[in-house]
Amino acid sequence: MRAHPAGPRHGDMVSALGAPAAPVDAVSLHELSPVVWPINVARGSGDNLTQRSLEVAGLDVRDIADEFGTPLYVLDEGDFRSRAAAFRRAYDDSDIPGKVYYAGKAFLSATTLHWLADEGLNLDVCTGGELALALRAGFPTDRISFHGNNKGHDEIETAVAAGVGSFVIDSYEEIARVAAAATRHGTVVDVLVRVTVGVEAHTHEFIATAHEDQKFGLSLSNGAAAEAIRRIVKLPSLNLVGLHSHIGSQIFDEAGFEVSAHRLVGLAAAVRDEHGFEVAELNLGGGMGIAYQSDDDPMTADQMATLLRGIITRECAGYGLSLPRIAVEPGRAIVGPSMFTLYRVGTVKEIDLGNGHARRYVSVDGGMSDNIRTALYDAEYTVRLASRVSNADAVLSRVVGRHCESGDIVVRDCWLPGDVSAGDLLAVAATGAYCRAMASNYNYVPRPAVVGVRDGKANLVLRGETIEDLLAFDPAL
Amino acid sequence: MRAHPAGPRHGDMVSALGAPAAPVDAVSLHELSPVVWPINVARGSGDNLTQRSLEVAGLDVRDIADEFGTPLYVLDEGDFRSRAAAFRRAYDDSDIPGKVYYAGKAFLSATTLHWLADEGLNLDVCTGGELALALRAGFPTDRISFHGNNKGHDEIETAVAAGVGSFVIDSYEEIARVAAAATRHGTVVDVLVRVTVGVEAHTHEFIATAHEDQKFGLSLSNGAAAEAIRRIVKLPSLNLVGLHSHIGSQIFDEAGFEVSAHRLVGLAAAVRDEHGFEVAELNLGGGMGIAYQSDDDPMTADQMATLLRGIITRECAGYGLSLPRIAVEPGRAIVGPSMFTLYRVGTVKEIDLGNGHARRYVSVDGGMSDNIRTALYDAEYTVRLASRVSNADAVLSRVVGRHCESGDIVVRDCWLPGDVSAGDLLAVAATGAYCRAMASNYNYVPRPAVVGVRDGKANLVLRGETIEDLLAFDPAL
Repeated sequence: MRAHPAGPRHGDMVSALGAPAAPVDAVSLHELSPVVWPINVARGSGDNLTQRSLEVAGLDVRDIADEFGTPLYVLDEGDFRSRAAAFRRAYDDSDIPGKVYYAGKAFLSATTLHWLADEGLNLDVCTGGELALALRAGFPTDRISFHGNNKGHDEIETAVAAGVGSFVIDSYEEIARVAAAATRHGTVVDVLVRVTVGVEAHTHEFIATAHEDQKFGLSLSNGAAAEAIRRIVKLPSLNLVGLHSHIGSQIFDEAGFEVSAHRLVGLAAAVRDEHGFEVAELNLGGGMGIAYQSDDDPMTADQMATLLRGIITRECAGYGLSLPRIAVEPGRAIVGPSMFTLYRVGTVKEIDLGNGHARRYVSVDGGMSDNIRTALYDAEYTVRLASRVSNADAVLSRVVGRHCESGDIVVRDCWLPGDVSAGDLLAVAATGAYCRAMASNYNYVPRPAVVGVRDGKANLVLRGETIEDLLAFDPAL
Repeated sequence: MRAHPAGPRHGDMVSALGAPAAPVDAVSLHELSPVVWPINVARGSGDNLTQRSLEVAGLDVRDIADEFGTPLYVLDEGDFRSRAAAFRRAYDDSDIPGKVYYAGKAFLSATTLHWLADEGLNLDVCTGGELALALRAGFPTDRISFHGNNKGHDEIETAVAAGVGSFVIDSYEEIARVAAAATRHGTVVDVLVRVTVGVEAHTHEFIATAHEDQKFGLSLSNGAAAEAIRRIVKLPSLNLVGLHSHIGSQIFDEAGFEVSAHRLVGLAAAVRDEHGFEVAELNLGGGMGIAYQSDDDPMTADQMATLLRGIITRECAGYGLSLPRIAVEPGRAIVGPSMFTLYRVGTVKEIDLGNGHARRYVSVDGGMSDNIRTALYDAEYTVRLASRVSNADAVLSRVVGRHCESGDIVVRDCWLPGDVSAGDLLAVAATGAYCRAMASNYNYVPRPAVVGVRDGKANLVLRGETIEDLLAFDPAL
């Protein structure tokens, strides 16, 4: 067991003091790298430093904070829509048909579902709760795909009754359950088989193995995937439309996809040879990386689509297969960079680290309850003073939360102007994915609202929680 | 950034296959170690294997699951009360007065607050939310201590107005804020100073340094603690009653406390020398370890109290100080072992790891949303087949959740009977602390209920969430 969620408190002192590099000047402390921030975020203009606060689609973040409070997730609608549209174009506007599923697990709300439906995307859900939201929001049912390693009987029943577009089959048990539900409803359900192809990818690396030690999918190497397909093709209530693989997260290049596509196409050829038909769709899953810091270098949707088409075309030619539909499941790559979190500073503390080194601890009014990723994945974020600019010298800082735990860190290592103090607003970039989605009420802290901004107007996307909401679970009050 | 929340999927294969040791026989697979399970948990009797399901205070877990559903947190009231009472006795029944604060962050509800009030304990809260619950539940206000590194203006105002027993001061900013609130209310507020003494303890180790790289408290080494005390004694609206330190979590022996007590008493002597009075209370914080597995060996409340009294007595004698009140803040040590989580199995999957090794993946209907500790801290848990016993051979297993993430692991390495299958109930022990408290709605999964059991009756402590609760945050539905 690790002593502290974010690693030893002392062990990282040396590396933390070494990196990141100090900013060259006060200007770079306020720079808004376009790879990290939403497209409609900019600095206000004016001679007075306080006039150069952060603006989103024309709205001053100080006004947004005053109206909606802090902490607050701020979502740039234009940025979200443009990323969704870029994915749709990248896969639709080609001779080879493609399909883009938004991965709902990253962040889900009725408002963003309406935007996704507008932009022509499909949706992947993985629980009855995600499905319930999608159905209630009126998302086109036939554009929904149902994922998950342990779908419950009730969830399967609801999904079949609603007529979801497809199931991504993850276990033998599920084949029987979905078939039974389809039979009960007198319908035929389209299914894909989730195949574990033995590839695990992350940033610029991937590992390929024969044996995959994880809970998802049916193994290619031990024949479980082929056996699942055999069982599916025998069942008249199931229609095998495709094969699916998902190889990792925050992936920055195509090498891992190359191997997974090679193996998936190999299986598609085996299906043709054994069963006499070609699958219509190859779904290569999600995992497309985004920039959390200005030197991260993710591919664009278009670059990735071109690469995947090239790989699949080559592989299918090798096996003499017709080109299938290529599907992908971006979640983080759409919502991640379109949202940032606004916090208000509460206390500032100088910690003497010895040998002339010091660290500034800047405590904000949120923390690991609204962003568990720093503690959970050692994630790194970009943070900016948002309520003004400052000419003060840069100080090595750590942005921490308000929770009763030393691992409650929001941004582990950053440089902030030396005069940041109580009342200032800080903005942490690229918090759209897996922040609100994984938020908790640790220490009975209510979860912040999500506000969508467009054309100078801010609207609630998810309302903020209140203390009363939390106390409502307690029957002894 | 780590690729997967619980570490690399493949990297741990070798160690996982080596440990833990295989159980000697089928009996040990069903054993309920008293250091891990609540005192009122036992196996039912009867010749039929299905009659030997888990029972809590006379109730069959199958009946509890049928009534309240799964996943479910099950709390043994007798166990909770007996641990709370043991702490009170360990510190009260002595010539040296002591004080026990339950650390609310571990788990909080009105019902358990009533039990704590009954048993004569005090309470530590660290946010306005925890305070609101305590006030609403009628917990005696003067027995509440208010912690936290970034208490907000409103929270301070509420706490001063309510008349909480004391504030644990964590920053210079807070001194001014609490003093101002006290003045506004025409009252004098008792305060302790949270001192960072440069000790970090965990299990059987501790690190002592001069410089402490963490967000909490005021540093002993750089003089911040002494300066905070100077500011406090000058303010007529504040009354310095004590010094506080907290050195870590899951601590199994006294060595770290020895060093922290030495340093804290040294500061108390410096206070006497500079300001001419002795502080009334030394609070040594929480961090007392519990058993998550049968070979963990935490101290009892009594053993720890005796050790702390010995240390403080010795240290105070050395400085010629009168004996102060000794305070501690157990949270996990009270609620941790008194609760377990009940899950229902959904799918079982055999994964071939190569070289003749295999791992059984057992998927349950909860996961990282109701217990983030496995992913966040690499925590290890004990799991048992709960709905029956089995004579099947033990199989190396991994209990995983239903979330769309490969790191969604509940129990990383365990042995389970080879015939565990869909529909079986599993019980995971010692989930009382930091599980419901840190629970999320990841994948729109509602948070489970907490049920308290006593004398054959089960009552809701916290009701379970519903999908409707989750959708209620969405103004676009």
